[in-house]
Amino acid sequence: MLEELPTTLRTLVRELSRLPTIGEKSAIRLAYHLVSHSNGLAESISRAISEAASTIKFCSTCFHLSEGEKCSICSNPSRDSSVLCVVEKPMDVIACERSGEFRGHYHVLHGLWSPIKGVSPDQIKLSELQMRVQEGAFKEVILATSSTVEGDATALYITRMLSPFGVAISRLAQGMPKGGEVEYADDFTLSRAFMGRSKLE
Amino acid sequence: MLEELPTTLRTLVRELSRLPTIGEKSAIRLAYHLVSHSNGLAESISRAISEAASTIKFCSTCFHLSEGEKCSICSNPSRDSSVLCVVEKPMDVIACERSGEFRGHYHVLHGLWSPIKGVSPDQIKLSELQMRVQEGAFKEVILATSSTVEGDATALYITRMLSPFGVAISRLAQGMPKGGEVEYADDFTLSRAFMGRSKLE
Repeated sequence: MLEELPTTLRTLVRELSRLPTIGEKSAIRLAYHLVSHSNGLAESISRAISEAASTIKFCSTCFHLSEGEKCSICSNPSRDSSVLCVVEKPMDVIACERSGEFRGHYHVLHGLWSPIKGVSPDQIKLSELQMRVQEGAFKEVILATSSTVEGDATALYITRMLSPFGVAISRLAQGMPKGGEVEYADDFTLSRAFMGRSKLE
Repeated sequence: MLEELPTTLRTLVRELSRLPTIGEKSAIRLAYHLVSHSNGLAESISRAISEAASTIKFCSTCFHLSEGEKCSICSNPSRDSSVLCVVEKPMDVIACERSGEFRGHYHVLHGLWSPIKGVSPDQIKLSELQMRVQEGAFKEVILATSSTVEGDATALYITRMLSPFGVAISRLAQGMPKGGEVEYADDFTLSRAFMGRSKLE
């Protein structure tokens, strides 16, 4: 299928396939769309990618993506500086912000502790997290890592790491997702939902 | 959601959203992936897009995408030059090639006749098709436009346009897709499948 394509198109398909959720078939469709439209789409996308890649860095405090030395959240004085939310990756910050429920600060780990995937604790931003908590400004640290084996392991690791500093540590509630039907819920979710049940009266 | 992002990232998200099948959420995910990986992904994708866009043109004969004046199919002497397959867009050429069933030449219309979408016959490569057929090299023209209102209308239009030239004109068979269950087939497909039924003995 690919060998029929002109060389530069084949290169483009290969590059696009490196993106998450883009398989070879989608990559071919995108590549064709990019080269067969003469409205400047290819040029402006190409420019936008290289401009974003060269200007976006990591915030020196929380490691969220940022254009400057500090990200827009760290440099916003109206955020609650007594609560810290620990997440795996920048996309998680966006998701938490969308929920509208959290107004504190973030710490982006850039990964989760995973012996299976060969990710050790020193490869993620854990010592930086410890330093921030050690400085003593936070009253509570919310662990918002995913409800997966790695997310659980990392949350446990952080809980132990931060226990000497006398800060409150909490984890996102685990239970039924909004709209989730009991019939189709997996065992794990349902058992967590039972354990975490809340009193109504 | 978007206003939280740094400017260059927002621009990138907007540009990526212009691609087919990429909504805002996917665009944000792709944008984050592009800027948060330091393995040169952003640079090489950006380069591949602009290189492909600047080298890929339309074949001067069949209007398929091509790096040179003529595409690899038009310049391949082993293709059957007596059959011409008419398709809507370059992706359709790839699909037909993948079927392995067709070894002739193609003509890419770059659109379908659609009064509703404001596409008139002179906006697609119909006069070029007429010229190719008029020159007399083809014995058969296969209309491989989609089984949609526009595909049907365009096929009818072409049939009338080419009728003076005494060339055989055929259309792709319409019927049950491979693996399709009768119970779930839509009325139109089933009625076409009845009309086009083939004798077994």
